[in-house]
Amino acid sequence: MSNSKRRTRRSDLKAKREELSLHSFKFRELRNPLPPTEFLGPAQLDQLHNASMQILEEIGIDFFDAEALSLWEQAGAKVDHKNRHVWIDRALLQSLIAKAPSEFHWRARNPAHTLTIGGNAINFLPMGGMVYVNDLDRGRRPGTLKDTADTFKMLHMSNMIHMVGGGAAPSDIRPTIRHLKTGLLSYTLTDKTIYGSSHGRIITQDTIDMAKLVFGDPLPDDPVIYGVVNVNSPLRYDERMLGGMITLARAGQFSVITPFILAGAMSPITIASALAQQNAEALAGIALIQIVNPGAPCVYGGFTTNIDMKTGSPAFGTPEGAWATYIGAQLARRYGLPYRGSGSLCSANSIDAVAANETMWSMWPTVMAHTNMNNHSVGWLENGLTVSYEKMIIDLESVAQFYHFLEGFEINDETLALDMMAEVGPGGHHFGTSHTQARYENEFFTPFMRSGQSFGNWENSGAEEAPKRANRIWKKLLASYQQPDLDPAIHEALIDFATRREKELEGVDLYTD
Amino acid sequence: MSNSKRRTRRSDLKAKREELSLHSFKFRELRNPLPPTEFLGPAQLDQLHNASMQILEEIGIDFFDAEALSLWEQAGAKVDHKNRHVWIDRALLQSLIAKAPSEFHWRARNPAHTLTIGGNAINFLPMGGMVYVNDLDRGRRPGTLKDTADTFKMLHMSNMIHMVGGGAAPSDIRPTIRHLKTGLLSYTLTDKTIYGSSHGRIITQDTIDMAKLVFGDPLPDDPVIYGVVNVNSPLRYDERMLGGMITLARAGQFSVITPFILAGAMSPITIASALAQQNAEALAGIALIQIVNPGAPCVYGGFTTNIDMKTGSPAFGTPEGAWATYIGAQLARRYGLPYRGSGSLCSANSIDAVAANETMWSMWPTVMAHTNMNNHSVGWLENGLTVSYEKMIIDLESVAQFYHFLEGFEINDETLALDMMAEVGPGGHHFGTSHTQARYENEFFTPFMRSGQSFGNWENSGAEEAPKRANRIWKKLLASYQQPDLDPAIHEALIDFATRREKELEGVDLYTD
Repeated sequence: MSNSKRRTRRSDLKAKREELSLHSFKFRELRNPLPPTEFLGPAQLDQLHNASMQILEEIGIDFFDAEALSLWEQAGAKVDHKNRHVWIDRALLQSLIAKAPSEFHWRARNPAHTLTIGGNAINFLPMGGMVYVNDLDRGRRPGTLKDTADTFKMLHMSNMIHMVGGGAAPSDIRPTIRHLKTGLLSYTLTDKTIYGSSHGRIITQDTIDMAKLVFGDPLPDDPVIYGVVNVNSPLRYDERMLGGMITLARAGQFSVITPFILAGAMSPITIASALAQQNAEALAGIALIQIVNPGAPCVYGGFTTNIDMKTGSPAFGTPEGAWATYIGAQLARRYGLPYRGSGSLCSANSIDAVAANETMWSMWPTVMAHTNMNNHSVGWLENGLTVSYEKMIIDLESVAQFYHFLEGFEINDETLALDMMAEVGPGGHHFGTSHTQARYENEFFTPFMRSGQSFGNWENSGAEEAPKRANRIWKKLLASYQQPDLDPAIHEALIDFATRREKELEGVDLYTD
Repeated sequence: MSNSKRRTRRSDLKAKREELSLHSFKFRELRNPLPPTEFLGPAQLDQLHNASMQILEEIGIDFFDAEALSLWEQAGAKVDHKNRHVWIDRALLQSLIAKAPSEFHWRARNPAHTLTIGGNAINFLPMGGMVYVNDLDRGRRPGTLKDTADTFKMLHMSNMIHMVGGGAAPSDIRPTIRHLKTGLLSYTLTDKTIYGSSHGRIITQDTIDMAKLVFGDPLPDDPVIYGVVNVNSPLRYDERMLGGMITLARAGQFSVITPFILAGAMSPITIASALAQQNAEALAGIALIQIVNPGAPCVYGGFTTNIDMKTGSPAFGTPEGAWATYIGAQLARRYGLPYRGSGSLCSANSIDAVAANETMWSMWPTVMAHTNMNNHSVGWLENGLTVSYEKMIIDLESVAQFYHFLEGFEINDETLALDMMAEVGPGGHHFGTSHTQARYENEFFTPFMRSGQSFGNWENSGAEEAPKRANRIWKKLLASYQQPDLDPAIHEALIDFATRREKELEGVDLYTD
């Protein structure tokens, strides 16, 4: 065989392998059967709990929304309307958060894609909230609606990802109507669970109204959309997020209450303090939701990490971030609340070994902490400013590895295979046994990112590194997109709704009207 | 300030940071205070245990050494001398392994560098057993004695690394005398713990004799050197390793008994089977050591991973490897034995994101499993064929992160800092508080590999990726080398010994004479 023929065959095999393992992955629920890692002992957890109660009772917290203030007042909290400030007694707080469910279902348009949030269920959600998109062909650029659509298509086809949404904000669409454009894409490009909104009453209500066109009015008992509420740490909920979370709660949809704390900036510099503050902030939001709609599903979110004190920028994938992830999960378990963390956080500017190390410093703690919603589990780059298509592919492989890892293996006579050991005997090899032959195609995790080549072959075929392989794979993934069915009448109703609302929302101040 | 000045200042700061955080790291013992991750339940662990007992009783295991066979016979095992094969009853096996200590000290030339092996002590050891050295300047090349010296110097200066040794074999030195050359380097370039040998009786005895010149004759009660015994899986100990382990045991030095199993090649393809076989092989070796010298320290090693069934090459950093790491540690704990794993294993050919992901898939399980000897914890590349100087630096940072992570943080009034939260109030920031100012220099893990730059600054300053930064750092590390003191009389005695033995070993068949 000539060298060029050999190269062709080799690259065919490589291509086949990439397609096989990414596309053959089956969508499924995932559980973490391992006991969660408990970083703190019960006494230390009590210290954090007590400190957070003291924060809510003595320092208090801002709620920049008239309805929220009056809800707190009616519930029995001490309210300063002028300064829009609330002090919450621990007995009141605990009676409220006790109403939140510890587990719920999050319904997808396709029932096969409905998720469990809580217990030891672990769901992998994609990156979101970015400004830029980066890929090897086009470099780093502001995201557009075309990128949103491409991202959604790739996420829909990635069966290890449980939800479709996020990515970079479409800079070519004016902010007031982005939710309508992305909402339309969400319902047409995927039948997995999708994102809603928590950006004020108007936008959030629009996403609820769109959900009604798809799921029926009234909406099902299980939530169908959610919003992420990033508390304006320290100790402040603003108009936009309060309008969003109250609107979602009233409609039985869920909020993920996630204080955004970089220790040293939005909290005192010590992680003990940052976590006490995170706990106070998260529980205050969850309690408010329970005032609005007792029993409404909500999720305790942790996003605490440290600042890089040399530059003032966030530092993701740090030991401090790992502490916060584990302990956030412990706190959520203490209150019987589902927990949200983040899996592919990193600070690096490109997809190098440090980016991957940072990502694994986010992902391992997130998975081992029993994180129910593993947001940003793929594609995050550059402190979250950028979606990287190539990193998304690389992270997808590590997500797929966690499935294989957590699903474990059987121990029985068949898998112990002592007869094969006796047959092959000392010093032999097991490549050719009937046991190996019957199992070799599916026994092990099948990677799509690893080259599997020897150094010599790898060098001779171009010394390709991970981003270049990933570039080829995301293009194949995008090209393989298959649109799920949607009732044409529903599709039309969604388009009519979006078109009408686009006109109505011109000139509206979205967060205070 | 001109642009070029600004650039200079920025790179000065970067340089300073790199130096500070790598060099200021203090050598210390490390403990993992977290409960170890238990991947299997007790009943499943029993299944593996019972299968491995059945292997030793019914299938048996080869011992290719006459002394080993006669030792087994005297101990009461069934021995087939012609086929050099032994069957070991579970009662005999368990009575022998019960004699091995669960914890011991490994003495360094400098008592401040003496280590604890066992319990929840975690020690980071460097890569070893490689053929090639790779760095950005000189590319991939066979290792030389100069590389061994450079590697030892850098490892000596890396305070997060507990032991100095390993690296690539010096190809410019004939195999029969490499142990003399590297032994001399070990005692002169570092005062940390060092490697000995387990390559047959002659070489191993030489390393023991050298140790006597340094530590005195008789040697101290605590071991001062060790050897790694990679069982010739499946189910065979060869002459070379048996000579080595018997010689070490008799001298009170320790062996790390590590079956080298790639499931699908050296064992049946299923991980259940591979682990049962690993357990049988490791325990048989440890039991033999206890026959030679009851109570001699030894370590249970795990190195099991899968083969890449598409290429037949090893696959490191896989979910299967993670299972094996966790479960290997569980088995070692079951028998009260110290455990050895491996931290920076990967299959990638260059230091890209996949190399880092694979490495973290080795490192996280190894640390969280309570691995007492974390061998190969830095610098491993390309299935272990190559030492990468740049990867060594990148891995050193992740090792340093694990120290910070495992050492945790205090929770008290001072660190909870509720007074600061009250002072700053809602919506403020904590950059300038007295609490932050007093702590910011040392509160967080200080990285040396992360750039900390914004995308714009990073791009304008050359878009440097991790390997290039690491290249600069290892050169600084090497240049910073300071030789520890050694009594000139001891140094002279070592040189005399090595010179004499070099002559004597000409033409000797090392493993059977």
